[in-house]
Amino acid sequence: MQVWIEFASTYSYVAVERVEPLAREAGVTLEWRPFLLGPIFRDQGWNDSPFNLYPRKGAYMWRDMQRLCARHGLAFRKPSQFPRSGLTAARIALAMADDPRCGDFVRAVYRANFAEDRDIANWDVLVALLRDMGWDPDPIVERASSGAIREALKKQNARAVQLGLFGAPSFVADGELFWGQDRLEDAIAWAADGPPAGLRA
Amino acid sequence: MQVWIEFASTYSYVAVERVEPLAREAGVTLEWRPFLLGPIFRDQGWNDSPFNLYPRKGAYMWRDMQRLCARHGLAFRKPSQFPRSGLTAARIALAMADDPRCGDFVRAVYRANFAEDRDIANWDVLVALLRDMGWDPDPIVERASSGAIREALKKQNARAVQLGLFGAPSFVADGELFWGQDRLEDAIAWAADGPPAGLRA
Repeated sequence: MQVWIEFASTYSYVAVERVEPLAREAGVTLEWRPFLLGPIFRDQGWNDSPFNLYPRKGAYMWRDMQRLCARHGLAFRKPSQFPRSGLTAARIALAMADDPRCGDFVRAVYRANFAEDRDIANWDVLVALLRDMGWDPDPIVERASSGAIREALKKQNARAVQLGLFGAPSFVADGELFWGQDRLEDAIAWAADGPPAGLRA
Repeated sequence: MQVWIEFASTYSYVAVERVEPLAREAGVTLEWRPFLLGPIFRDQGWNDSPFNLYPRKGAYMWRDMQRLCARHGLAFRKPSQFPRSGLTAARIALAMADDPRCGDFVRAVYRANFAEDRDIANWDVLVALLRDMGWDPDPIVERASSGAIREALKKQNARAVQLGLFGAPSFVADGELFWGQDRLEDAIAWAADGPPAGLRA
């Protein structure tokens, strides 16, 4: 199952913390798909997060995040800055996409942003995260900074648009799109067993 | 628990079909709160449903509705017109708010709109629904057309704004706002038992 994440996205934090145990239990393999919502939002005429553009929705979202994190036992602190650019983290995650440690990096970035209020747009913060996990950051940073990864991220975003993505997290299971961490269980069930009975041809 | 519904809202259909058995089981009493999203959307700069303004989101929503209805065993047909004005139905529902049959009327309207593709903006359609349920439509229509109900609906909408509502369905349990049919179970649990352990002061 493809897991499409934007590091600025609040609900993606809850999803990335929950997805691996659920997938393992269902025998579903995960493919991390970091992408950027900024260009997709700009296409819709938004120059900021909808949670900032629509303050009522934003106020609700922070309370909802607090409730969701409490329910799932996740640490949560409202970041002092929102949204933080996920570009650099997306480049690193893309550079690590085939590395089995990619999920660990992804979760570390979300925790830094949404539990520790650290500036994940900053290379130094991301390098510190890599180091904290006991990895040599140099080859990862070098690859993440390369033109190849820059190009790959552009292609990834083009693919996101092609798939009809408009928010994060999103999941794609056998070509079927699911949006939102609330659909995580449904997406995994689809990836494991195909469409439910009521939707089979 | 307050159940805030807009008759044009797709996901409200799923919620109104599910809410009564869940509430009964939890010992939670329901208060129907019909309101109008139009004025609230216009305040945000939208002159149409966000599902029409943002076509990617709209395309996804119709597929998601199909999946949700299949899962919950609900009939579903994509309406040939969307959104349909919920104004008249909201006036009738408000006129019936203290009537124990209000839930039956509410469900009949949603089924007409989202399972039978009937024009719920039309008085005749709504009168036919009332008649189909074996009720005398005349006193209900008279009350629903009155200035008192017109005023009451304005006040209801002002209250919705005050509560921070920005979409439908929404649920308010002891002052706590929940948005979306995906939060129905959480709202009922809150209404029955108060905040979960992790959120108690």
